[in-house]
Amino acid sequence: MDLGEIKRPTLILDPEKVRKNIERIAGRIEEGKTIFRPHFKTHQSAEVGEWFKEFGVSAITVSSVQMAGYFSQHGWKDITIAFPFNKLEIREVNRLAREVNLNLLVESDDIIEFLDKEINQPVKIWIKIDTGYHRAGISWKDTDQIAMLVKKIKQSQLLDFKGILTHAGHSYDAGCRDEIKLIHQESVARMTELRFELAALGIDNVEISIGDTPGCSTAEEFCDVDEIRCGNMVFYDVMQLYLAACRKEDIAIALACPVVAIHPKRNEFVVYGGAVHLSKDYVLDSENRKIYGLMAFPGKMGWGSVEKETFVRSLSQEHGVIKTVPRVLNRLKIGDIVMVLPVHSCLTANLMKGYRTPSGDFISTASY
Amino acid sequence: MDLGEIKRPTLILDPEKVRKNIERIAGRIEEGKTIFRPHFKTHQSAEVGEWFKEFGVSAITVSSVQMAGYFSQHGWKDITIAFPFNKLEIREVNRLAREVNLNLLVESDDIIEFLDKEINQPVKIWIKIDTGYHRAGISWKDTDQIAMLVKKIKQSQLLDFKGILTHAGHSYDAGCRDEIKLIHQESVARMTELRFELAALGIDNVEISIGDTPGCSTAEEFCDVDEIRCGNMVFYDVMQLYLAACRKEDIAIALACPVVAIHPKRNEFVVYGGAVHLSKDYVLDSENRKIYGLMAFPGKMGWGSVEKETFVRSLSQEHGVIKTVPRVLNRLKIGDIVMVLPVHSCLTANLMKGYRTPSGDFISTASY
Repeated sequence: MDLGEIKRPTLILDPEKVRKNIERIAGRIEEGKTIFRPHFKTHQSAEVGEWFKEFGVSAITVSSVQMAGYFSQHGWKDITIAFPFNKLEIREVNRLAREVNLNLLVESDDIIEFLDKEINQPVKIWIKIDTGYHRAGISWKDTDQIAMLVKKIKQSQLLDFKGILTHAGHSYDAGCRDEIKLIHQESVARMTELRFELAALGIDNVEISIGDTPGCSTAEEFCDVDEIRCGNMVFYDVMQLYLAACRKEDIAIALACPVVAIHPKRNEFVVYGGAVHLSKDYVLDSENRKIYGLMAFPGKMGWGSVEKETFVRSLSQEHGVIKTVPRVLNRLKIGDIVMVLPVHSCLTANLMKGYRTPSGDFISTASY
Repeated sequence: MDLGEIKRPTLILDPEKVRKNIERIAGRIEEGKTIFRPHFKTHQSAEVGEWFKEFGVSAITVSSVQMAGYFSQHGWKDITIAFPFNKLEIREVNRLAREVNLNLLVESDDIIEFLDKEINQPVKIWIKIDTGYHRAGISWKDTDQIAMLVKKIKQSQLLDFKGILTHAGHSYDAGCRDEIKLIHQESVARMTELRFELAALGIDNVEISIGDTPGCSTAEEFCDVDEIRCGNMVFYDVMQLYLAACRKEDIAIALACPVVAIHPKRNEFVVYGGAVHLSKDYVLDSENRKIYGLMAFPGKMGWGSVEKETFVRSLSQEHGVIKTVPRVLNRLKIGDIVMVLPVHSCLTANLMKGYRTPSGDFISTASY
C-alpha cells in the first residue's frame, strides 16, 4: 500500500475482504426462499452498494429517510427504512414513495391512522416486533394488539401489509458464539410463533424479517425467515470479533493513523486518530479493560495481522493512546503509520465520510 | 422557539448561554497577567469564534492543522495547535506559519531536530508536559530531559521557545468539585515547580499554559499561570455537570429530537437522535447506570429545565431510548420534539456540523 499520501487519519477499505464478507452471507441464503436485504447504514456508499449487486442483491435497508433518498438517487428501487416512521418527514416519504418501492416500519395505532390519512402513494408496511432487545417495537407476546394493527393496515387503501420485522440487538450482549446462536434461534422462534398465532386469527401470508449481524453471521441457515437485513457484516469490526461473529481477517476497514509520540517507559504511543475518527464505542477485554481499537502494521495490500498485547486504551478528540509491548514499540518511530481496526465500523465509517483503497482509489459516501 | 422547521435531529445553540459561559471565565482572568486562549475544537465555528472577541480574546487553541487553517482563513492570527506536532503535515504547517503566529507542541528530540531542519518560518514552541494525565507529554519530573530540549530549541534559528504546556485531563476522573480543584492545584504546582527548577538551570522566562475545562471552571484565580486554554466551557455538557464543573442552566447546546415511539409499559420512549448525532460518550450515575444524555422540553427561547428521573439510557446509530416516569411520558405524543442535552458537547458538535439558534438562524462550522 502506498502510504506516501497519508498525512492524517485516513480510512482504508479492503475491497477483497468486503466482497468475501458479502459472499459469505449471500452464499448461505437459499435462493427463491429468503431475500438478502442488506443494511446500507454501515458503509453509506453508492459504490460499495454496487458490489452487492454482484451477489444478486436488489433490495436494501437504510436507517433514515435521507439515506433512502441517497440510495434512491443511485438506482436502488426497493428500500426499507428500518426506523420507526417519523411523522415529521411525511412530505419526504411521500416524495420518495413516488420513486421507489418503499417499506416502512410502524408500531402504533396512531402512526397507522396518520399514514392512512397522509400518505399519497402505495407503501409496504412492516410491524416492528420486540423479541427481547427492548429498543423499539411491540412485544412479540402482544398478539392481539399486533392483530389489531394488521387489520387496521389492511383496511387502508395505500398501506400494504407485508409482515413482522425484528432486530435482535440483544445479541450484542452475548458472551460467546453459542449464546448468539441461542438468542438468534429464540428470536426466530418467537417470530414464527407470532406468525402462527396470527394465522390462527385469520391473518395469513405474514413475512418475517430479521436483522442483526451477530445472529446472521453465526446462523447456519435461514429456513424460517423471509428476509435478512444485516449490514455490519460488510466490514465487521472489533466488536463483532469479540462476539466471535467474525474472524480478525474478516475486518475490512482500518484507520491509517500517523504516530506522533512514543512513550517507552509506559509501553505506549500516541497516534493522530481519536474519537472524531473512530467514535467512542469500546469493548471490554477479559481483564475488563476498555478497548477502543486493535492495531496492525500496514502491509503491501492493506494491513498485516493484528498485533497481540496491543490495543487502543483511550481516545480523546484527536488523540489515540495505544498500549503495547517493547516488541511492537521497537518497530515504531514517530512519523510512521499504523492501522487501527475500529470497534464499531458503522460509526467510524459515518465519521470518516469516505474510504481509500490500498491501491489508492477514493470511494465516496453519502453527505447530507 | 419555532419548532415547525425541525424534522430531524437538529442541534440548537443558545447564544445567550454561550456568551454568559465565555464571560464567566473571561471575567476571572486578571488582565495583563494571564491570557485566555480558548480551545476552539468544541464549537469549530467561525461565527461562535467572533463572540469571544467581545471579551477581548485574540489568541486561540485548536486540535488539528486543518482546524488551524479554517480559523486562520477567518481572521485568527495567533493559533496554538494543541496536539503533538505531526511530521507528515510539515508542508501544511509551513504554509500556515506564513499566515499566522503559530504555536507548536513538541515532546521529543527527534521532533525538534526535524522542525529545525524542515521549518522555513519562525514558530513558537511549547514543550508538552505530563502532570498526571499520561496521554501525551514528558513527565514534569524529568527536568533534565526538558532542560535539554529547551536548549536544543534555543539553538535553532526559527524555533522560539515559549514555555511549558499541560492538559490535566485526569480532572475528568474526579469524583467531586473539590477533587477537581485538588487536581488543578496539583497540576499548577507541578508546572511552577518545573519552572523553578528550569530557572535554577539558567532557563528563564518560561511561560505556563494550562488547559482543562473542569480545572479552569472550578479554579478561583489563575495567578501562577500565563495562559489558560479551556474550550468545552463555551457549551459545557452533561459530563461537566456530573463533575460539578457547571450548572444545568449553563449547558448551551441541546439536540432537538423527534419522538417516534412511546412505550408506557417500560416508561420509555424512542427518539430520532442516536450515536451519529450525540456520540457514544456517557457518564455513570449514582446507580452506575450509563447516561447518554439528559432531557428537557422545548421552551420559548430554547429549552426548559432538565427533567428529573429522565435520561437517555441507550443509543444506537439513529435511535435514542429515553427512560422516564409517567409524569413526563403523559406530556408526550409521537411527533413531538424533545431536547437532549449531550454528554460530550465537543463530539456532538463535531457530528452535527452546524447549529440553529432558537430564533431560527443557522450557524455553520468548519467542514474538511
